[in-house]
Amino acid sequence: MNKIKNIGVLTSGGDAPGMNAAIRAVVRAAIYYDLKVTGILRGYEGLIHGDFIEMDRKSVANIIQRGGTILKTARSDAFRTKEGREEAHRQLLKQGIDALIVIGGDGTFTGAHLLTTEFNFPVVGLPGTIDNDLEGTDFTIGYDTAINTVINAVDKIRDTAESHDRLFIVEVMGRDSGLIALRSGIGVGAEAIMIPEANMGVEGLVTRLETGRKDKASKIIIVAEGDEIGGAFNVGEVLKEKFPHYDIRVSVLGHIQRGGKPSCMDRVLASRLGVTAVEGIIAGQSGVMVGQKNREILFTPFDHAIKHIDAKEITPAWLKLVEILSL
Amino acid sequence: MNKIKNIGVLTSGGDAPGMNAAIRAVVRAAIYYDLKVTGILRGYEGLIHGDFIEMDRKSVANIIQRGGTILKTARSDAFRTKEGREEAHRQLLKQGIDALIVIGGDGTFTGAHLLTTEFNFPVVGLPGTIDNDLEGTDFTIGYDTAINTVINAVDKIRDTAESHDRLFIVEVMGRDSGLIALRSGIGVGAEAIMIPEANMGVEGLVTRLETGRKDKASKIIIVAEGDEIGGAFNVGEVLKEKFPHYDIRVSVLGHIQRGGKPSCMDRVLASRLGVTAVEGIIAGQSGVMVGQKNREILFTPFDHAIKHIDAKEITPAWLKLVEILSL
Amino acid sequence: MNKIKNIGVLTSGGDAPGMNAAIRAVVRAAIYYDLKVTGILRGYEGLIHGDFIEMDRKSVANIIQRGGTILKTARSDAFRTKEGREEAHRQLLKQGIDALIVIGGDGTFTGAHLLTTEFNFPVVGLPGTIDNDLEGTDFTIGYDTAINTVINAVDKIRDTAESHDRLFIVEVMGRDSGLIALRSGIGVGAEAIMIPEANMGVEGLVTRLETGRKDKASKIIIVAEGDEIGGAFNVGEVLKEKFPHYDIRVSVLGHIQRGGKPSCMDRVLASRLGVTAVEGIIAGQSGVMVGQKNREILFTPFDHAIKHIDAKEITPAWLKLVEILSL
Amino acid sequence: MNKIKNIGVLTSGGDAPGMNAAIRAVVRAAIYYDLKVTGILRGYEGLIHGDFIEMDRKSVANIIQRGGTILKTARSDAFRTKEGREEAHRQLLKQGIDALIVIGGDGTFTGAHLLTTEFNFPVVGLPGTIDNDLEGTDFTIGYDTAINTVINAVDKIRDTAESHDRLFIVEVMGRDSGLIALRSGIGVGAEAIMIPEANMGVEGLVTRLETGRKDKASKIIIVAEGDEIGGAFNVGEVLKEKFPHYDIRVSVLGHIQRGGKPSCMDRVLASRLGVTAVEGIIAGQSGVMVGQKNREILFTPFDHAIKHIDAKEITPAWLKLVEILSL
Repeated sequence: MNKIKNIGVLTSGGDAPGMNAAIRAVVRAAIYYDLKVTGILRGYEGLIHGDFIEMDRKSVANIIQRGGTILKTARSDAFRTKEGREEAHRQLLKQGIDALIVIGGDGTFTGAHLLTTEFNFPVVGLPGTIDNDLEGTDFTIGYDTAINTVINAVDKIRDTAESHDRLFIVEVMGRDSGLIALRSGIGVGAEAIMIPEANMGVEGLVTRLETGRKDKASKIIIVAEGDEIGGAFNVGEVLKEKFPHYDIRVSVLGHIQRGGKPSCMDRVLASRLGVTAVEGIIAGQSGVMVGQKNREILFTPFDHAIKHIDAKEITPAWLKLVEILSL
Repeated sequence: MNKIKNIGVLTSGGDAPGMNAAIRAVVRAAIYYDLKVTGILRGYEGLIHGDFIEMDRKSVANIIQRGGTILKTARSDAFRTKEGREEAHRQLLKQGIDALIVIGGDGTFTGAHLLTTEFNFPVVGLPGTIDNDLEGTDFTIGYDTAINTVINAVDKIRDTAESHDRLFIVEVMGRDSGLIALRSGIGVGAEAIMIPEANMGVEGLVTRLETGRKDKASKIIIVAEGDEIGGAFNVGEVLKEKFPHYDIRVSVLGHIQRGGKPSCMDRVLASRLGVTAVEGIIAGQSGVMVGQKNREILFTPFDHAIKHIDAKEITPAWLKLVEILSL
Repeated sequence: MNKIKNIGVLTSGGDAPGMNAAIRAVVRAAIYYDLKVTGILRGYEGLIHGDFIEMDRKSVANIIQRGGTILKTARSDAFRTKEGREEAHRQLLKQGIDALIVIGGDGTFTGAHLLTTEFNFPVVGLPGTIDNDLEGTDFTIGYDTAINTVINAVDKIRDTAESHDRLFIVEVMGRDSGLIALRSGIGVGAEAIMIPEANMGVEGLVTRLETGRKDKASKIIIVAEGDEIGGAFNVGEVLKEKFPHYDIRVSVLGHIQRGGKPSCMDRVLASRLGVTAVEGIIAGQSGVMVGQKNREILFTPFDHAIKHIDAKEITPAWLKLVEILSL
Repeated sequence: MNKIKNIGVLTSGGDAPGMNAAIRAVVRAAIYYDLKVTGILRGYEGLIHGDFIEMDRKSVANIIQRGGTILKTARSDAFRTKEGREEAHRQLLKQGIDALIVIGGDGTFTGAHLLTTEFNFPVVGLPGTIDNDLEGTDFTIGYDTAINTVINAVDKIRDTAESHDRLFIVEVMGRDSGLIALRSGIGVGAEAIMIPEANMGVEGLVTRLETGRKDKASKIIIVAEGDEIGGAFNVGEVLKEKFPHYDIRVSVLGHIQRGGKPSCMDRVLASRLGVTAVEGIIAGQSGVMVGQKNREILFTPFDHAIKHIDAKEITPAWLKLVEILSL
């Protein structure tokens, strides 16, 4: 392998708080190790179009605390085609970029995997997604901020639920993964949590409400958007029919979950992984995502990182915990 | 008029941050002036059912910073009937309550007006509603907190809008009033603000977007829920058709706007008005809402307070301000 | 007077949240009215050194929500000399700037007044200071954010005060003005508020604590930094001697009060005043600060704006309010 | 061992955000397993005085989001004596309490260890301290909230530091442990971090500032309160002498770090550990602290938990990370 002199960095897929902290760490580490670092705008789409910007220490000054990504992000249909990836590879060579660091989720790594295997181009990934649904890391960058955003929002909803003795169905993000719902549901003291991985279904919820405490007036039910019965509004319809005397409201938290200042944990995680990604590139790593498990750094091949094997907190023990706490 | 010895206090209608600060001020002021003070649970509904609790200094300790209302609130169909109000009046007499302080919005004051006129019972009101749609006060208790909640949420949405070059349509509360939309829209630097009082309509919005800056990728449009064209989702449908190349998302902020810790302004306003309401009761005021205009205290008859005459910021000058700033 | 074609804008003195919103409004309004707008870095100091940057719509994109000032600020000894101001004036002419908008507090306006009178140069001021100690405006830009920062910090201190039954002496900013202390003290439900304008003195505080409620374990005392008895630590020393059985702690909030995202009120105020300042300049205003009183815009001569006549909330009525609420 | 029927729960030592979430989890789990649960006020001090309150599901409703501890906390000199502990033991027996759950830090566990060994009384501990300085758990309850409080405060200070090109020395909590300083320092992008475990000393800091970037105007230095050179003010004195041209300010964050709403991570950790503590008691555990390492639950003997062996992030690898990032 040739010596790395110029690292490209991009963010791709849905944005996540902490992406800027990760970019900053990549840039600072590259400079520390005397490498050039090139920013690529709007993910793979910008790569194909050659949207490059040179980055120095000032480019990443005062961004560690900002949500979003200064490099912008996009989903790229073109990159899903062989031609698109060939053009991307040409742009990398033309720009003199020797290795790439990509920050994103499973879509990002699927693309990175192809770039690595098709062109033998060195790519290291950083897990940047609020969903926490990647192998090879206990937490993804953005997840901790997102669940804090959820609990802060639901704490406000709890205020008004308490005042009115209302039942609120609150939909949080997580199309395929209940991890945001599970942790934030515990965090807000939800009376029930509906997640795609645990097939409680709406009948289960009805049973739970029928057998639960009658003296508790306000109730919060957290629903992951991916739930099979179709989201918070559908759950609301069923409950309104079954419990006509309840005062029921639905709230879909939506895109506030993607933004905001990253939490300390996300900033530290992004900083550590960003530096490690650069060190990994220098050490010859490629085709891998850098993650943190049990406080240790590890590298996981892209095709494994996206496999959705590790259920993390979606286990019987955690589900029992929810049950005990929601008494 | 007999000397007042026992003041009842209730919160009614939709809850608003700062109601607890108002309750605290009423209780503290009553004790300061050697009066007894009785809490009434769940607004007029609780009054009819005789849900009273005695209140002392400890009852209101450490609540100034809490959202919601410790007295709970409700809407009461019964109180809209003559029989309901007669029962309420009986309960007041039976409990030995000489005067009532009600905290709420126009529905609350409509009821208070009837209680005052039908039974000659002393009632003073405090403006507690996030909508700011009452005469006789520059601001209602809860409005400042609500608009801060909105801008904090939309700042997060702006992060992700910027990262993706997206257009977001964000719906805020205000069924009949665009005041939340107007101020928060200015506060977030919205590209357009749609309010019920200004008939821009969706065609106006389309024109504005067609003639506006093309170089500005992300856009935030704030829509008051009361807008004639039917809320954020409908606006989204029209825009998606007209601007198929835009990446458009809709977010309905919902009930988070009702909760949360009150802002300093709301706490101070609630504290000042709460004390003044008690002093007003002692001085023989009745049938009036206590408010603050131009930093001065004033009393406004209930039937005037609910008249929706003062447009506050909904004026041509403010709308021009929006236009200049949204360049 | 010649037609204005190029407006300079600077921030000066201590920074205040909302200064960026004000800069943005000035730039947007200037562009709206087809004027050129030039940013001047680091206040009068940068003006003397000719630190100019051209500003367009993009320069002020996405800054409305940021604390601090993108134009930076400084105190300038040189500008206090005649030679310094002559150099500043030369720089303005050299750069082709026809009029100046300055954002700051009384030091800023003292300088602006001299620039106007000595060189007949058009200057309009915007009140940007957390202290709220200017004539001609109900609120200064930054004050509302600062008092919200204070109450959020003291709410946290209240948590630990309650848990330990402690007395906390919390020092807030305001060397010559108790306005931050007064409003935030009411906002946190302080047991006592010590401000420079009300000579309670430490004996008064001791008396108050001796005669006050004995059943209330935790206590918060808010002290303005300007208080004659020398700040929170001195108050602490006296109280520890007088009340040896109390568990007393001191906390100086410090510079967090100057930073942070501006509140909605500060953003709206800054936006409105910024646009009005440009319109005022165009209309021929000079030597005046633009402010807002009773919801109306007004212009106040610089030498009047800094006179500290209006006590705002420092009145017997407000001090009685504090007494009633701190029962 | 006899069957457990009644569990006592107390909080002791310095309070930490998440203690209420832990109390709630203990109470809910106890009820789930058909046990009685008794709250003990003000830690060991209240135990000695027999300050008991019966707890049911309602006692812990709506407290998961609150800072502080509803059971209050205190340090107890009496409990450090044999007589004090004998009285405490008598009170436990008198009240019919069969086992005790204590929430606190190393002082708390030192006491718990004695209670267990001297009287063979079953005690299980929960790690509740912002310092994160306990063996047997990756994180203590309260640490994550505290570091988030720090970064939110320092973000505000960064705003004003940037505006004025100032150097700020910010003191954070951690008398014997630099863990708060280290993580929050990374989180805010500090230019230097001074912690008791790494003997950089003030000369090291001076060298670092002399050799560091000259183009970076604003600087943040995070100092743990325990640092040998005596806190932020002393560091400030030295720097002012060495760098007379710097504009240097000192800020001591103080007790805000102990309060505030717990973060999601702290709520979830407290909830999980609280339930597990009850299950541990039932299963016969005693003399141990329940913690979480590598996402797994584990029990650590009290005398080991307080040994300060595990340096956690205070390692050469992390210190190098700080160096790279602070470029």
